[in-house]
Amino acid sequence: MIRVNPHYSKIQANYLFAEVAQRVKNYLAAHPGADLIRLGIGDVTHALPAVCVEAMVRAAREQGSDETFHGYGPYYGYEFLREAIAKTDFQARGCDISAEEIFVSDGAKCDVGNFQEIFDTDIRVAVPDPVYPVYVDTNVMAGRTGAHVGGNYEGLTYLVGNEANGFVPPVPAEPVDLVYLCFPNNPTGAVATREQLQAWVDWARANGALILFDAAYELFIQDPAIPHSIYEIPGAKEVAVEFRSFSKTAGFTGTRCGYAVVPNECRAYDASGAAVPLQPLWKRRQSTKFNGVSYPVQAAAAAVYTPEGQAQCRALIAGYLANARIVLEHLNAKGYKTFGGANSPYVWFNAGMESWGFFDRLLNEAQVVTTPGCGFGNAGAGFIRITAFNSRENVERAMERLDKIL
Amino acid sequence: MIRVNPHYSKIQANYLFAEVAQRVKNYLAAHPGADLIRLGIGDVTHALPAVCVEAMVRAAREQGSDETFHGYGPYYGYEFLREAIAKTDFQARGCDISAEEIFVSDGAKCDVGNFQEIFDTDIRVAVPDPVYPVYVDTNVMAGRTGAHVGGNYEGLTYLVGNEANGFVPPVPAEPVDLVYLCFPNNPTGAVATREQLQAWVDWARANGALILFDAAYELFIQDPAIPHSIYEIPGAKEVAVEFRSFSKTAGFTGTRCGYAVVPNECRAYDASGAAVPLQPLWKRRQSTKFNGVSYPVQAAAAAVYTPEGQAQCRALIAGYLANARIVLEHLNAKGYKTFGGANSPYVWFNAGMESWGFFDRLLNEAQVVTTPGCGFGNAGAGFIRITAFNSRENVERAMERLDKIL
Repeated sequence: MIRVNPHYSKIQANYLFAEVAQRVKNYLAAHPGADLIRLGIGDVTHALPAVCVEAMVRAAREQGSDETFHGYGPYYGYEFLREAIAKTDFQARGCDISAEEIFVSDGAKCDVGNFQEIFDTDIRVAVPDPVYPVYVDTNVMAGRTGAHVGGNYEGLTYLVGNEANGFVPPVPAEPVDLVYLCFPNNPTGAVATREQLQAWVDWARANGALILFDAAYELFIQDPAIPHSIYEIPGAKEVAVEFRSFSKTAGFTGTRCGYAVVPNECRAYDASGAAVPLQPLWKRRQSTKFNGVSYPVQAAAAAVYTPEGQAQCRALIAGYLANARIVLEHLNAKGYKTFGGANSPYVWFNAGMESWGFFDRLLNEAQVVTTPGCGFGNAGAGFIRITAFNSRENVERAMERLDKIL
Repeated sequence: MIRVNPHYSKIQANYLFAEVAQRVKNYLAAHPGADLIRLGIGDVTHALPAVCVEAMVRAAREQGSDETFHGYGPYYGYEFLREAIAKTDFQARGCDISAEEIFVSDGAKCDVGNFQEIFDTDIRVAVPDPVYPVYVDTNVMAGRTGAHVGGNYEGLTYLVGNEANGFVPPVPAEPVDLVYLCFPNNPTGAVATREQLQAWVDWARANGALILFDAAYELFIQDPAIPHSIYEIPGAKEVAVEFRSFSKTAGFTGTRCGYAVVPNECRAYDASGAAVPLQPLWKRRQSTKFNGVSYPVQAAAAAVYTPEGQAQCRALIAGYLANARIVLEHLNAKGYKTFGGANSPYVWFNAGMESWGFFDRLLNEAQVVTTPGCGFGNAGAGFIRITAFNSRENVERAMERLDKIL
């Protein structure tokens, strides 16, 4: 008898975005034709950089001729892309990362979700709270947790972010083997300083732990003192894997490309306690369960690294950050305590009341859709996330409405 | 201490294609400039259908304007593609499959590799022998096998294909919960009759088992009596998941698109023995660990279902099948016992000697690269696989050379 994975039944249906959608639907049913402004979802709204489009068109045309056709590509990505990534995203910032340590994928979500497969089932896992749900759910599916009780899964360590620590949690006091960190953070927009990241790297080295560092929002960092990569921290290559994405930096949410960095030195341990390099395990996982990224998509991603591509991405980011600044100014003027928004497309703020109640108020009184912080975990209760992913005009209109009702 | 998945150390490095590459390299080092003809690798060589290229170019251009930009797509694929698949690949053949039962992915290999994740670790698994290695390796990684002994993994059931059963193995005598079947088969090119598939479906229904049916080579079927889909068999929807690919049918090996069919009725069981529908589990897996297929790629795949796309794919397939026929004729004329080639791009034949020895003979004496059957499992020993994926001219030249030496 074919039995299902018993751990799937532990997963809580994530009602967050479904519930947001339902409340929006109900509102529209009661107020047909209402002029809603959506600042809730973390999807970009602006087109791909023109240089990426041209590269994709050229590559698509190459697929149309036997002479220039690309069949199966390399499992870990074309050299032209891996080289460009290593040089621009790492070596140019002083990080000693080479092309062979770059693993191109169809997105950071897939990598972040799949990476835990190469570890033993009974390792101890820590996740941030509030948290991007993929870190949690993929470990529940893999059988690394107990039941869901009081909003948390038994057996997981929650690294609580709050106003006191600026949503950058300290290293855990209890023993943990694998830690997920995300800076600039989704959903709080928080960034970690060099000293804070050094503390995490030192802790991982001292405890035989590993850090999965989600840097999908890296290009939003404007403050020159904030590290863009965990590999700017001495000692990180042995204890950290980094995930990057073209989704938010170059508008690839629907075009799909990202990458993982698995340094040659990065290690884990076997049952006897002997160190084993992690990279061969990830290669094995990817070559067995994945077959590389579409050639035209990789060509588009490589165009990000041309001078025009870099300029076009920075212009995209600058537009979203200008939106975030407008949101911050209006909320701060009304006395709300805000986080993020300066080096991140996300503004996170203390609503001064229960999240869903505030969400409903913004929807009903201002026709503005946001995301209730409580949907990201217990530590998000009482907060609201506003995203900068919309046009300038819509963000300004939304803030004028908020000015009137708050 | 972060411990690795202990099952990865059981996986045998698959030396097959690496060893082929090494022997070719050695030959070229000793014979610089030799005119090798490669009939070994299962990668297509002809360009995408023109209608697919045009669709991809149009969709890429849409990504370049805010007004037509596509961000995150639906997790399971765009309706325009799911509808076209359901209608053309299933409903037109009398299979009662709807768009909501189609799950678009970045390739059949990924789906075939990932699908086992939704089952319990200690289910009993059966794989064909000879076998596409992904079926085996992904179950080893998941901890469903013991050690590798004598060419087989302990704990796996091997469904032996041989000349006597025409490489269509009968249902197992021992208890098994999950079975991988692949028709038209890789590597043997064998196809299963309606009666043979009915026996498998009846067996699965009687035993509470599930069939993972890999139909990546479906479009190569020419014999009108051979089913293209497992859903042509009464009762299959409850007990079978089907995997399809655009790789071999439309040249998408490097463009990446495929799909899984998980019927509404398809069921597995929980620990108490109660039936549970499989589709919600796959939805949960995909929405958590995957983020959809690139929009321009889905647009290209949908073009396969236009009348021009169907005609262009059939022309591609006809070209490869004509190659296979040439290979069959030459081998048969020399008295070799062949399998496949009529409804498949693969010709499989009894070499009359040990596989690697015959491979070396073809390489050294005819400068033709093939694949030794022993690399696909114990039951492949003594066989050779030749693929039709090359130009007509190269196939004809290769066969002329074989005529001289065999």
